[in-house]
Amino acid sequence: MIGGSELNKIPNHLAEAIQWLSEFGNEEGGGVTRTLYSHPWKEAQEGLKFWMEQLGFHPYYDPIGNLFGRLSSAEKDAPVILVGSHVDTVKSGGKYDGAYGIIAGILALKYLKQKYGTPKRHIEVVSLCEEEGSRFPLTCSGSGMITGAYTIESFLGLKGFDGVTFEAAMMEAGLGPFNQPYTVRGDIRAFVELHIEQGPVLEKLQKSIGIVETIVGQKRFRVTVEGESNHAGTTLIKWRKDAVRGAVSMIDLLYSYEKKYDEHLVTTVGQLFVEPNVPNVIAGRVVFSVDARHPSESILHSFCQQFMDGFNQIAKKMGLTVYVEQCHEVHPVHMDSGLQNIVKEICTRNHIPFYRMNSGAGHDAQLFAPFCPTVLFFVPSRDGISHSPLEYTSDQDLETGFHVLTQVLHHLAYE
Amino acid sequence: MIGGSELNKIPNHLAEAIQWLSEFGNEEGGGVTRTLYSHPWKEAQEGLKFWMEQLGFHPYYDPIGNLFGRLSSAEKDAPVILVGSHVDTVKSGGKYDGAYGIIAGILALKYLKQKYGTPKRHIEVVSLCEEEGSRFPLTCSGSGMITGAYTIESFLGLKGFDGVTFEAAMMEAGLGPFNQPYTVRGDIRAFVELHIEQGPVLEKLQKSIGIVETIVGQKRFRVTVEGESNHAGTTLIKWRKDAVRGAVSMIDLLYSYEKKYDEHLVTTVGQLFVEPNVPNVIAGRVVFSVDARHPSESILHSFCQQFMDGFNQIAKKMGLTVYVEQCHEVHPVHMDSGLQNIVKEICTRNHIPFYRMNSGAGHDAQLFAPFCPTVLFFVPSRDGISHSPLEYTSDQDLETGFHVLTQVLHHLAYE
Repeated sequence: MIGGSELNKIPNHLAEAIQWLSEFGNEEGGGVTRTLYSHPWKEAQEGLKFWMEQLGFHPYYDPIGNLFGRLSSAEKDAPVILVGSHVDTVKSGGKYDGAYGIIAGILALKYLKQKYGTPKRHIEVVSLCEEEGSRFPLTCSGSGMITGAYTIESFLGLKGFDGVTFEAAMMEAGLGPFNQPYTVRGDIRAFVELHIEQGPVLEKLQKSIGIVETIVGQKRFRVTVEGESNHAGTTLIKWRKDAVRGAVSMIDLLYSYEKKYDEHLVTTVGQLFVEPNVPNVIAGRVVFSVDARHPSESILHSFCQQFMDGFNQIAKKMGLTVYVEQCHEVHPVHMDSGLQNIVKEICTRNHIPFYRMNSGAGHDAQLFAPFCPTVLFFVPSRDGISHSPLEYTSDQDLETGFHVLTQVLHHLAYE
Repeated sequence: MIGGSELNKIPNHLAEAIQWLSEFGNEEGGGVTRTLYSHPWKEAQEGLKFWMEQLGFHPYYDPIGNLFGRLSSAEKDAPVILVGSHVDTVKSGGKYDGAYGIIAGILALKYLKQKYGTPKRHIEVVSLCEEEGSRFPLTCSGSGMITGAYTIESFLGLKGFDGVTFEAAMMEAGLGPFNQPYTVRGDIRAFVELHIEQGPVLEKLQKSIGIVETIVGQKRFRVTVEGESNHAGTTLIKWRKDAVRGAVSMIDLLYSYEKKYDEHLVTTVGQLFVEPNVPNVIAGRVVFSVDARHPSESILHSFCQQFMDGFNQIAKKMGLTVYVEQCHEVHPVHMDSGLQNIVKEICTRNHIPFYRMNSGAGHDAQLFAPFCPTVLFFVPSRDGISHSPLEYTSDQDLETGFHVLTQVLHHLAYE
C-alpha cells in the first residue's frame, strides 16, 4: 500500500498525456471526434500502442480492436487485474471522457513498475474500442466482447450513421477478418475503471472522488399521442382532440408522480415532435420520449407502470389514443462492495474527500460487473458538463484520481 | 324579395360549377393548389372570365388581379353591391373554400338577371385574387387593395416561398406593370360574402346557415424558454434547468387560465420545437407558439397579459429565461348588424335553420367591414374540415346558401 507521503512524487504529465491523446480527432472549437474504427480512432490506438511499447508493456489487439498492454507477474498463471476505459468519443465530445481512464491506467502501470517492480498478479491496461454507440447502434462493444455479453455475430450487418457496415469499418481499420475466433477471458480477477463524473454532484458537494455503488437502471419509452388535426380558430375547445393538450397533461402527470419518489428517480422528456407543427393548426399527433432512471429495478418498474396507467387515463378522458412503446432498457448494476471499500479506505487514509454515489450515466463497468468484481470511481467534471468541447477536469482533480487508482492497483496486484 | 316558392326553381349546376373550378390546380388525392399568380390560378381566373363573358357580365381585371363581372343598373351612377370571395387556395386545399362564394355569386347574378332583369343598383361579382397568404407572407391582398387597406407598395420586394418576387410573379401572370395607378373604390354600397364554415359548429348544431356577428381577434406569440442542456442521467432534478419542464408548466397554465373564460376564448399551441431534441439530453431550449382568439379585444388583451405574467413567474421559479414575442395580431371585426338582420329575416321566412355565430377564421369580409357595410354567412362543413382535400359541403347545403345569397342580393339591388 502506498502511503500518503507518496502523493508528492507522482509524475506530473497526466494532463499533458490527455492533451496529446485529444490531438487524435481534434476539431476546431476544441471538440474531439473519434468514432469506432475511424481514421482518428485508429491513430489514437496506434499512438497508445507505441507508448505502451516504449514502456515495455507488450501491447496487442484483440480481434474486435481492444488494445491491451501488460505489466506481467513472474507467475505465468497468475490472474489479471484489468484497468482502463474507452478510447472512442461521441461526435464533438471532450478530452476526458474515456481517455482519462486509459491514460491514468498506463501511467499507473509505469509508476508501479518503476516503484515496486514485478507485481504478484498481472496488471493489464485496456483501451476499450467502443462505449459510446456514436457510430453503430450498439454501445459498449469492447467490454461486451471481453465479457462475453456480445459475440461477434452481435455486430453482423450493423450499419453506422455513415452507411458503412461494422465488418467493412473493421477491415478499413486494419482489423479482422470478421469471423476469427474470440475467446472470452477467464483470467480476469477484477476490473477497475476511473472516469470523469459527467455530472455535477462531486463539484456541488466539493468532493474529490465519487465511489459508484450502482449504475442506475434505465427505461426509455416512445410515447405517441394521436388526436385530430383541426383549424385553431373554428374549433371550440370542447370539440378538440388536441394531441398537444394530451401530451402536456401526460408530461405534467409524469413530473407529479416523479415528485413522490426519492431524488434518485429522474425522468427526462428530451425529445418531442408535433404534427403538423403549425401555429394555427391543432396538432393531430405528438411523439415524445420518456427516459426514467433509478438504482432500484423494482422502484423503476412500478414508477413506469404508474405513469403508463396515468397516460392511458388521460387519453381516454380526452378522446385521444396513446401508444407507449419501450425502446431501451438497462438494468441497474451494482459495483463490487469489497472493491468499493478498498477505494474508500484509500481515500480516508489519504484525507481525500469522497462521496458514495450512483452513476446516472452508463459505463463499461456495467458490462464487467456481472463478469468479475468491478469498481468504478469518478473525479469531478466542471459544471457537470460532458459530451461537449467544454468538458473539463482540473489538473489537481486528475492527479487525485490517478493517486487513488495507483493505490487501488497496488493493493490488488502487489499485496 | 323572392318568396319561399322560388326555392324549387333554382338552377342545379352549383355543385358542377364547383367541380369545374376545382379542375384548375387539381392534384392526385383530390387536393386543389391555386396559389396567387401561379399557372392554375391564372387559368382559373381566365375560366371564370370566359364564363362571365358568356353570361354578359363584361368581366375585367383590376391592376392587382381581382376579376370583376357586372350586372349593370340602368342608372350609371348607382352604387354597387359587391358579392364574392377568393379564388386562391392553400397548398392541397379543398374545392369549396373561396370558390363557393365566387360561383354562387356568378350564378346568383345569372339567376337575378333572367328572373328580374336590370337591377336598381349595379351588382358586381368579384373573384378576389388572394386571401390565404399561401405564396407570399401577406393575406387578403385582393380585398386589401380594393378597400385601400394596402397599397401596391405593400407588396414591393415580397418574396414567395418559391423565391419569386411579388412583382415578377404578377408579370408572369400577365398582369402589371407593377406601378400602374390603383384607385380605391368609392362606389361600393355593400359587400356580401358566402363561405363554407371551415369549422364544426353548424354541423354539430344542425343549422344550415351561420350568420357571422364578429370575426374574432387573434394574437399570436412565439415563446422561447431557455434553460441548460445537460445529461439526463447524471443531473438531479433539483439541479436541472430543463426547458421542456418549463414549457410544459407554461402551457398547462395557459390552459388553466383559458378555462376561466367563456367558450369563445380559444388558445392553441400548435408548434413546438425542442433543442437539442434528443431522448437522453435535458432540453436547453424550447420554442412554442401560442395562438389566442376571442371576439372581444379587451378580453383577449387581458387574457394575454395574464398568461404572459404567469409565464414569467414560472421562468423565475424554475431558473429559466422566457421571451414572449407577439408575431401576429388581428383585431376583432364586427359585421354590419343591418345586413345580418336581412339574412336572418330571409332565413326565418324560408324556414331555414340559422345560427348567429363568430368566425374563428379570417376572411376577406374582415377587410371590407371597416370600408363598407359587410355581411358574411356560412354553410356547414362536414366534420368541420377545411384546408384539406377532405373538405366537403353537401349539395343541399350549397343550394341553401345559394338561395339565401340570391335573396340577399335581390333585396339589396332590386328593392
